[in-house]
Amino acid sequence: PAIPKKAPPVENRLVCSLEELYIGSTRKMKISRNIVDAAGNINHVEEILTINVKPGWRKGTKITFPEKGNEQPGFIPADLVFIIDEKPHDIFKREGNDLIMSQKINLTDALTDFNLTVVTLDGRQLLVPLNEVVYPGYEKVIAKEGMPGKEPGKRGNLRIKFDVRFPAKLSSEQKVVISQVLPRESYR
Amino acid sequence: PAIPKKAPPVENRLVCSLEELYIGSTRKMKISRNIVDAAGNINHVEEILTINVKPGWRKGTKITFPEKGNEQPGFIPADLVFIIDEKPHDIFKREGNDLIMSQKINLTDALTDFNLTVVTLDGRQLLVPLNEVVYPGYEKVIAKEGMPGKEPGKRGNLRIKFDVRFPAKLSSEQKVVISQVLPRESYR
Repeated sequence: PAIPKKAPPVENRLVCSLEELYIGSTRKMKISRNIVDAAGNINHVEEILTINVKPGWRKGTKITFPEKGNEQPGFIPADLVFIIDEKPHDIFKREGNDLIMSQKINLTDALTDFNLTVVTLDGRQLLVPLNEVVYPGYEKVIAKEGMPGKEPGKRGNLRIKFDVRFPAKLSSEQKVVISQVLPRESYR
Repeated sequence: PAIPKKAPPVENRLVCSLEELYIGSTRKMKISRNIVDAAGNINHVEEILTINVKPGWRKGTKITFPEKGNEQPGFIPADLVFIIDEKPHDIFKREGNDLIMSQKINLTDALTDFNLTVVTLDGRQLLVPLNEVVYPGYEKVIAKEGMPGKEPGKRGNLRIKFDVRFPAKLSSEQKVVISQVLPRESYR
């Protein structure tokens, strides 16, 4: 007998939020397909497929359900493939396993001791003490607060990039005090 | 008789500094070429060509010396063409008729009244009072201090872009004063 032919895989996009890719999630997909019963009749059925999205999965990760395509007498059903896509996040941008965020800070907070609170992708309030001088473009790296890696130890970092906002105007009195208090040297 | 043929123009680059294109200059070029005398003999001669570079000339401006190529019996000599090119300048970048410069400024000067001195392309000391708050990326536009235009009224602007340098560190005492003097609101 002839070798049964197999149709090429059927690919679908599975869009996940960054939160799902951080914590993991369970996604159920309803699919409809044709199956062939013992008598050779084609029946249209609906099925639920479950995907356990694992923490650290990236855009492009493929999940294959073998032979879950339409059945047809004399053919091997196609594989059904889901490809992970990443929904853009309002706050965090993913770069590999690192998470990047932009943070506006006003000049007063940038120059003095300031505690920034960052809400993580799993909802924790992360306290980031900023006792150093925060300059425009400064990047604060919080180790191991990025995305989970494939191996437990490979977690990425959280990188906070600062945009320092300046006061719209200053009075003559304020300028006098500023010129007295700010250093004239040791600028970076 | 046959119509005499003319060779295609010979093109040369004439690199000018931004100062030359701002003030104008006189450039003398020694060229060597063959000329045919009355007896039909070919002689190799050297000539000096003068180009009066006009204020406001741009990269790509062409100056043509008609028929200054090699002479050859029975041919019309080629035109000699000089094409203006602009030498990159250490301080100014030209954008159309505007001049752009980047200026580092320390935070103290950025926040207080400060007079910046800019040496123009014609060597003047231009005083630029900065009484406003200079923030990172701020652009100060000095009208009519750019490159000359083709028409006298079309002179471009000078645009100074600021990069504000922050102190490397501040003491606790300095931080206390800063948090007292800088505003908490009205940040741009």
